[in-house]
Amino acid sequence: MRVADRHYRTIWPIDEGTAGTADAVGAVRVIDQSRLPHEFGTVDLHTLEDAAHAIATMVVRGAPLIGVTAAYGVALAMRADASDGQLEHAARLLRATRPTARNLAWALERMRAALERVPRDERVAVAFRTAALLCEADITQCRAIGKHGLGLIRAAARGAEHGSARAGARGGAGGAARPVNILTHCNAGWLACVDWGTALAPVYLAHDAGIPVHVWVDETRPRNQGASLTAFELGAHGVPHTVIADNVGGHLMQQGRVDLVIVGSDRTTASGDVCNKIGTYLKALAARDNGVPFYAALPSSTIDWSLDRGDDIPIEQRAAEELTHVTGRGAAGTLETVRVVPEGSPALNVAFDVTPARLVSSLITERGVCAASAAGLRGLYPERSG
Amino acid sequence: MRVADRHYRTIWPIDEGTAGTADAVGAVRVIDQSRLPHEFGTVDLHTLEDAAHAIATMVVRGAPLIGVTAAYGVALAMRADASDGQLEHAARLLRATRPTARNLAWALERMRAALERVPRDERVAVAFRTAALLCEADITQCRAIGKHGLGLIRAAARGAEHGSARAGARGGAGGAARPVNILTHCNAGWLACVDWGTALAPVYLAHDAGIPVHVWVDETRPRNQGASLTAFELGAHGVPHTVIADNVGGHLMQQGRVDLVIVGSDRTTASGDVCNKIGTYLKALAARDNGVPFYAALPSSTIDWSLDRGDDIPIEQRAAEELTHVTGRGAAGTLETVRVVPEGSPALNVAFDVTPARLVSSLITERGVCAASAAGLRGLYPERSG
Repeated sequence: MRVADRHYRTIWPIDEGTAGTADAVGAVRVIDQSRLPHEFGTVDLHTLEDAAHAIATMVVRGAPLIGVTAAYGVALAMRADASDGQLEHAARLLRATRPTARNLAWALERMRAALERVPRDERVAVAFRTAALLCEADITQCRAIGKHGLGLIRAAARGAEHGSARAGARGGAGGAARPVNILTHCNAGWLACVDWGTALAPVYLAHDAGIPVHVWVDETRPRNQGASLTAFELGAHGVPHTVIADNVGGHLMQQGRVDLVIVGSDRTTASGDVCNKIGTYLKALAARDNGVPFYAALPSSTIDWSLDRGDDIPIEQRAAEELTHVTGRGAAGTLETVRVVPEGSPALNVAFDVTPARLVSSLITERGVCAASAAGLRGLYPERSG
Repeated sequence: MRVADRHYRTIWPIDEGTAGTADAVGAVRVIDQSRLPHEFGTVDLHTLEDAAHAIATMVVRGAPLIGVTAAYGVALAMRADASDGQLEHAARLLRATRPTARNLAWALERMRAALERVPRDERVAVAFRTAALLCEADITQCRAIGKHGLGLIRAAARGAEHGSARAGARGGAGGAARPVNILTHCNAGWLACVDWGTALAPVYLAHDAGIPVHVWVDETRPRNQGASLTAFELGAHGVPHTVIADNVGGHLMQQGRVDLVIVGSDRTTASGDVCNKIGTYLKALAARDNGVPFYAALPSSTIDWSLDRGDDIPIEQRAAEELTHVTGRGAAGTLETVRVVPEGSPALNVAFDVTPARLVSSLITERGVCAASAAGLRGLYPERSG
């Protein structure tokens, strides 16, 4: 998507001046998301360890982007040593970086399947080609999610035009110019993927199609991915939005100021339970209590077909410092970190929660919109049945 | 309560070296809550304007403390000019500082009733005496709330001892030492009152009685009153606690790691709807979804007997900077403010929400525990019937 009038992806190979074949890839370049929104810069990944470190420290984050970064991590590993042992080592190292996102394991399985029967001297080329294909597939899937979700936004816009009670409560004086108010949590935009995003793909397509939309952006403590990443990417693309504290969404729904909620997912069970950034469950409860549709948008690589119950998903616990300290731009213009919790007070930093399928109105996948249930998912993915 | 082994109240008159009569009060001293938890200091209020400014800028905050500070503000105003016009002016100025807390209007009504028939030359003394009485009454009420709430914590502790399913899920290996896990939102502790607190009074009494308690402290964005004030006062008094992001409470309830929720209230309707810090409603929804008792603790000065519906409570909207910027202790040890939201992204800062009575298990008042309903409240306050 656009940043300062240039089109970007979140990750791309560079050849650093050598010939432009896959073998000649010099490094993999990623947008450094740990410094956004204050500084827009990139980091070059030269080795497997660079890729693992970028995922673990959230230089790159978002379930789909974690997957493709891991795929490139395997390719970088193959360039150093194309042995079976190294392939095994790379998969183990990368899988250990983040425990919750399903796409990570999915991408590693894809890389292994593509490489294990390939002769060593072809593995580097095949690995980079496969990683590039996963990138293209992610973009195609996100665009498809966008098109399917666009239908839901269009329907909400028609409701607004016809002056439904909910639309009226948004305070508009009538007419078609009232925006569709969409609440999102965390960042499931193009920065979480390669391009377009999952939850935000329908928003970008609606905006580009001239449907007036406005996004309520949950700040998303403790890492502030909403305030820092979602606000940044919506602002860069020109989509109207307002940042709110995570505490506010329920009140806005009570006031009729939210037409629909769209979030992403880090892992979705075969029964439709949605594991996503911590706090998603609270918004789903509020949506249910106020009759607001609640959608989760996800590529099928996010679905864990081996799990039925969300309770069985491993939930990542991260360092307490992410909560006790906050980084932002100081008065001098430089990035600074301040402590906000008293010394001596412990803090617990749980990164994800599970929204049970009963609270999810529909899932939006690259194949279409379905009920958040085993039957709904099997309808879209019949090859997974039985 | 205790800070560094000394007992403090949040507000007290000082005579600055003159004779110790009410007339001789030199100033009113308050703990400066805008610098906590990083710096513990006080501010002296010399004039009506000082008091109004302290309330508006949240040097003092918390519904009960706002009320008594306003009462002292009237007393300071009387010392400058004991006329009827000044009494009228003081009430108008103070009432405009914060729109939501019921205790503010309540305290101003009490001061007016105490002063309007008193000769001018006696008004200063009567005003300071009345403000001091309101302080004492607040302490008495908070202690009573604590005693009534203590019964609820005792009952939860007995449940833990008997190894209920919920207690088992807390991961204890059995025995009586498992703490009762209490979640609270914002700060409704002694810093929000004169002493003891509302929501935290039962916690202090339980801790002092040797009942093992542990408090999950919601950070409470955007002003972080949980991370900065609740964590500070619990830590200073030695009560075990853990700070969590506002997003986490629902997940902890799903995991059976919360035994009960206690919050305060800034205004409660005659029908039991509870207006409190933004985000309270989300925790009440999660409590209901997981069968966790949800209590609101409040002195009767918080009850707006003239209102039936929470929807009719005016909800304060505060400056966007409270959300876009965060203040904490920097690496150099000084207080610093950093920007966390991108330039150009608007932010909305709504300070309160309304939790409908249907989600509130019980109200805890100075007269006892009652259902969150018109009948429940009338049972405790029969003089308000008919």
